[in-house]
Amino acid sequence: MGAGDTAPIEVRLEEADPGEATADRAAPRIVALGGGHGLYATLTAMRYLSPHVTAVVTVADDGGSSGRLRAELGVIPPGDLRMAMSALMSAPAARDAAGASTGLDEEPVADRRELWAQMLQHRFGGRGALAGHPVGNLVLAGLTEVLEDPVLALDELVALFGVDGRVLPMSTVPLEIEADVSGLESDPRISRCIRGQVAVATTPGKVRRVRLLPNDPPACDDAIAAIGAADLVVLGPGSWFSSVIPHVLVPEQLRALRETSARKMLFVNLAPEPGETTGFSVERHLHVLHAHADSFRIDDIVVDAASVPAGREREHLVRAAELFGARLHVGDLARPGKPVHDPAKVAILVNELCEGELSR
Amino acid sequence: MGAGDTAPIEVRLEEADPGEATADRAAPRIVALGGGHGLYATLTAMRYLSPHVTAVVTVADDGGSSGRLRAELGVIPPGDLRMAMSALMSAPAARDAAGASTGLDEEPVADRRELWAQMLQHRFGGRGALAGHPVGNLVLAGLTEVLEDPVLALDELVALFGVDGRVLPMSTVPLEIEADVSGLESDPRISRCIRGQVAVATTPGKVRRVRLLPNDPPACDDAIAAIGAADLVVLGPGSWFSSVIPHVLVPEQLRALRETSARKMLFVNLAPEPGETTGFSVERHLHVLHAHADSFRIDDIVVDAASVPAGREREHLVRAAELFGARLHVGDLARPGKPVHDPAKVAILVNELCEGELSR
Repeated sequence: MGAGDTAPIEVRLEEADPGEATADRAAPRIVALGGGHGLYATLTAMRYLSPHVTAVVTVADDGGSSGRLRAELGVIPPGDLRMAMSALMSAPAARDAAGASTGLDEEPVADRRELWAQMLQHRFGGRGALAGHPVGNLVLAGLTEVLEDPVLALDELVALFGVDGRVLPMSTVPLEIEADVSGLESDPRISRCIRGQVAVATTPGKVRRVRLLPNDPPACDDAIAAIGAADLVVLGPGSWFSSVIPHVLVPEQLRALRETSARKMLFVNLAPEPGETTGFSVERHLHVLHAHADSFRIDDIVVDAASVPAGREREHLVRAAELFGARLHVGDLARPGKPVHDPAKVAILVNELCEGELSR
Repeated sequence: MGAGDTAPIEVRLEEADPGEATADRAAPRIVALGGGHGLYATLTAMRYLSPHVTAVVTVADDGGSSGRLRAELGVIPPGDLRMAMSALMSAPAARDAAGASTGLDEEPVADRRELWAQMLQHRFGGRGALAGHPVGNLVLAGLTEVLEDPVLALDELVALFGVDGRVLPMSTVPLEIEADVSGLESDPRISRCIRGQVAVATTPGKVRRVRLLPNDPPACDDAIAAIGAADLVVLGPGSWFSSVIPHVLVPEQLRALRETSARKMLFVNLAPEPGETTGFSVERHLHVLHAHADSFRIDDIVVDAASVPAGREREHLVRAAELFGARLHVGDLARPGKPVHDPAKVAILVNELCEGELSR
């Protein structure tokens, strides 16, 4: 399945037990890059395929509970990290993962993990000082203060709950997103600089380019190592400018992505997001990513059938994939009636694409 | 060692390894009643003697983090519960407790428990909305919301961390303390009603009597059962009006305390507390407790040598102990140079008192 063969392939999803997928070969080492709900879905999908899943998570959020915590305590915004941890904790275990890390009976441990996944996601209600904070954000913030290191804090949760896999931040410091946005002035050629993830995500203008502040942030050593040792690296889906593109803006991480022998897959969002990517076609998603990292190569770009145009526009899409040296794959990936990826469908597709040749 | 023999006994504390205490007999079932720092010290002491320690904790706090959480979320004030849990988590394990509940190697589990005990006690700093909240209070509040029951929440922490023992609330609903206080008017015979634990603890007047609101609060079934099955019940030390006396004001719990065949010990505070018990003698501590529950019988009342007066006043003290049918014990219980109980000294004394006859 070479990158040169660019004819889109229709992937057929059959009813299958995803737990069977890894039964007869060594479980692959998978790294999933992203943030927010997109990453949650990807992690749930990848856990069908392997117990060796590492999430690498954006840390530029400045809204909601995460924004309040980074402003108040100076910690890395915990929200996307918490969500990734919950995904690994509540995902159905891959077949050979059962109990391996704890030596305990798997069933009560899995029940406990599921309860705590729910607990980490539980948001305080009411209208007081705590309203809207998920308990897990407070736990992560507290553990990070006690252990003085967000990676140690995340690894402590992994160890405590016997989680298969790992959650790592994209950078060891809190980041900011800054964007050049046009369409805010009467002259559409003038672009203005907007700062902050929330401001960028909700701008009524058109986002042209995003940057990280600091612009050469320290990568997470363990994330770099995980990418280097991976069989499969998955990027996206997710908020394009604030959860996906930032992963190629950390120089050391981009270098690791270029150098790894892992197979690299990009999942394009099922639908444009209001604000960030209003009106974006799939092709435009690809062009924008390429504009931020033209040296980044991808093996497979996966898009949902419903978002792929017919006729000539489809050819543009194939050519956009070629910018990355990638082959385009088209499949039914959505939950029925919802514009979100269905983890089981994603798992089956990835398994089918990778059959026999995960690592180059 | 009958209650009738009322001559005070000087207890000699010898250097000994408290871990040896339970080596050659079945570990006793101990229930410790109290709240706050006093209960923390008692629990640390009792854990030298047995892995079967149940803390029963007052839930009337309306100050600090607990007060903010009960006002904001309507939960049982978690502060004293959290502190008791931390005490059980970080106390040195009694000899036969090692790993019994989890089946894991005890050493890494103990390290993890110690880290999380520290984590539960860790307070957020700064000047924001979270400042002053210990992480454990937020975890307990969140777990209580998710499990819809404070006892299930506490038991979940016990199970997760393989804690030997249990922490239970004195009542399953948040309580308020109300006090009749004199000395606030120019006429010292006039007493005023003061409401709220903080208000009572800090009143410049003299507290005459305290009540709980509601005045017939539901007891915790599991606490009642633990008292009934105990070999030893320990009350105090602690804030006299807000952490000790409330335990005899829950009617069902007082009944359980009267009916249990357990040996009952009362530890009197080493020093009066500013506000609540300013200027209180040991004798006055006893009279005040008796005034709130004249049917309550105690086997042993233990006071620190430094707080026991000489001569005739000492006789008054012996007679005050007789109000409860109790024998008075005097020993060196304080940490050197500090007015707080030394857990190891308390453990050795209790072990000596109970040698061979814990349960009646």
